[in-house]
Amino acid sequence: MEHAKILIQEIGESGLLHLVQGFCPPDVIGNDAAVCAVRDGYSLVVTADMLVDGVHFSDHTTSAYDAGWRSIAANLSDIAAMAATPIGVTISLGLPPTTPVAWVKGLYRGAVDCLQVGGFDVPIVGGDVCSSPVRTVSISAFGEVKPGSELRRDRACVGDAIVITGEHGLSRLGLALLLEPERQELQAIGQVDRDQAIAAHQRPRPRLDLVEVLQDWQEVGGNGDAKAIAGMDSSDGLADAIEQICRASGVGAVLWRDRLLGLMQMNLPESQALEWALYGGEDFELVLCLPALWAQELVSAAGCGAAIIGEVTRSPEILMVDRQHKEKSIMIDRLQGFQHFSQP
Amino acid sequence: MEHAKILIQEIGESGLLHLVQGFCPPDVIGNDAAVCAVRDGYSLVVTADMLVDGVHFSDHTTSAYDAGWRSIAANLSDIAAMAATPIGVTISLGLPPTTPVAWVKGLYRGAVDCLQVGGFDVPIVGGDVCSSPVRTVSISAFGEVKPGSELRRDRACVGDAIVITGEHGLSRLGLALLLEPERQELQAIGQVDRDQAIAAHQRPRPRLDLVEVLQDWQEVGGNGDAKAIAGMDSSDGLADAIEQICRASGVGAVLWRDRLLGLMQMNLPESQALEWALYGGEDFELVLCLPALWAQELVSAAGCGAAIIGEVTRSPEILMVDRQHKEKSIMIDRLQGFQHFSQP
Repeated sequence: MEHAKILIQEIGESGLLHLVQGFCPPDVIGNDAAVCAVRDGYSLVVTADMLVDGVHFSDHTTSAYDAGWRSIAANLSDIAAMAATPIGVTISLGLPPTTPVAWVKGLYRGAVDCLQVGGFDVPIVGGDVCSSPVRTVSISAFGEVKPGSELRRDRACVGDAIVITGEHGLSRLGLALLLEPERQELQAIGQVDRDQAIAAHQRPRPRLDLVEVLQDWQEVGGNGDAKAIAGMDSSDGLADAIEQICRASGVGAVLWRDRLLGLMQMNLPESQALEWALYGGEDFELVLCLPALWAQELVSAAGCGAAIIGEVTRSPEILMVDRQHKEKSIMIDRLQGFQHFSQP
Repeated sequence: MEHAKILIQEIGESGLLHLVQGFCPPDVIGNDAAVCAVRDGYSLVVTADMLVDGVHFSDHTTSAYDAGWRSIAANLSDIAAMAATPIGVTISLGLPPTTPVAWVKGLYRGAVDCLQVGGFDVPIVGGDVCSSPVRTVSISAFGEVKPGSELRRDRACVGDAIVITGEHGLSRLGLALLLEPERQELQAIGQVDRDQAIAAHQRPRPRLDLVEVLQDWQEVGGNGDAKAIAGMDSSDGLADAIEQICRASGVGAVLWRDRLLGLMQMNLPESQALEWALYGGEDFELVLCLPALWAQELVSAAGCGAAIIGEVTRSPEILMVDRQHKEKSIMIDRLQGFQHFSQP
């Protein structure tokens, strides 16, 4: 394989820059900063994410290609979660000098492929390369949105339906299949489902395909804030997303337990299916609150795995209710989710 | 001191986010991405930089405050080097859980103070915090510029004067004073000069003060590219900047040796003064090529340390000539400058 054994220290900074620039459009290279068009009447949307080897990815579960894909997916998902149209991304890399050149190439190939998702062909418009003791990928992504049409967290209204745009817990199941394939409760899962779960973990698809329909609806609902859609992405888990929206909007939620058990269809035990649906994280779907009248239409637009999972309530708690056995209803606590810097 | 001994692992991710958000304007918090206005008719300018503990800063030479200041300065300098008006920055931090909370606060205080340079009050509009084995600061900065008014590297014309907007080598001298105070050739330097050099290293000032005058001139010179100004910042050294401009423009340059010896006035030996002026780096001044008629006016606008240091030539080499002793003229080679990932 070309470059399979060549290390970055052998090609040096200028060689690495040359390689990296090969993945950028030619007109963005050769100045201190890149220039991008923003349409008149639109605002800039900005997001940033950092991923670190051993924390967010590892050679054990993540190829260079998948690390690149996932880094971009996380950022484009934030752009989609604002109902914004993507404009471009920057990629900064901190790399040990002993990193194989092939790893960097793989990372950029994964990044570039993910940048095609949703048909946008988003360009890499800049970045940085530097020496670091640990492989670090830092991305920022830019989009544009008409002021007032952005999706916000603080717009949920009592009575809104809560919609998820796809299956939750699938990415976490994929991770478990990669890390602990021998685990007892995973043994009944068929090959097709395994492949789907691993793909969901390795190559999550940011929901840029929904940006256009969300923008249209934000404009329809724009006269009088009451009809605006509230939402965010579920990168840190479904329970976290619902809590963030509820807290920002000063409302609560009831979730229907039976609508969160999609993974049981893959022969995963009920309690595990539920835990991963709520706290698994990294599904990069959208969680939206909107008038019930529109919710079914959105579910249809979002496709497979999308569902109405509950409704927004005046009471500030987040309850998960079992509609068959009311006594099994429980309070949701997002603190079960993944937290950086957890105490020792 | 408040928080002097508290570590990040004690306040956790949510505590750290709360701290960091205290440095952002309230309206950018609480959504997946921030929304910023871009004036109609302007394009977006984007740049990114990553700084790593032990590579770009260290506890030995750089306080948290200075690390924050320098990280922002490097990025705003790139915005100034495009003759763009700053809009905002994102700051992503990778931090070991044992990092003192006080270090993070110091970093943000330095960042916020540097964001005031030039009177712009640039907001922090987002970012990320995550766990990492090494302290990593990744910044992206955004600005706006009228399309065609941006400063580019490939616009230098034969006969242009080459202007620097301030002293070069001063930051490198400051670093030497911090790292090797006992060094023989530094002993004759007076206290006022020492303080100035150390300040230049620790708190470089991005030349945002020149953006307005550069934009005005770009518009005056805009009818016919021949009169446009070429330029970039000198973050990687003066020799590097001149070589990049010359290569992009297909020209060469003659530099006047006597104009590069400013540090001799601080009693630095001639050869050391010259080496650091050319290859020291991190002065974050602008290097500009423009018609000689305008050059003196720009020098006046740029203030102390600014000078015309040479001219653009048809012949592609970069020569440094001694106007008294022509036989001492030498060819400039930027490869003496700092390079990441140098071979072992």
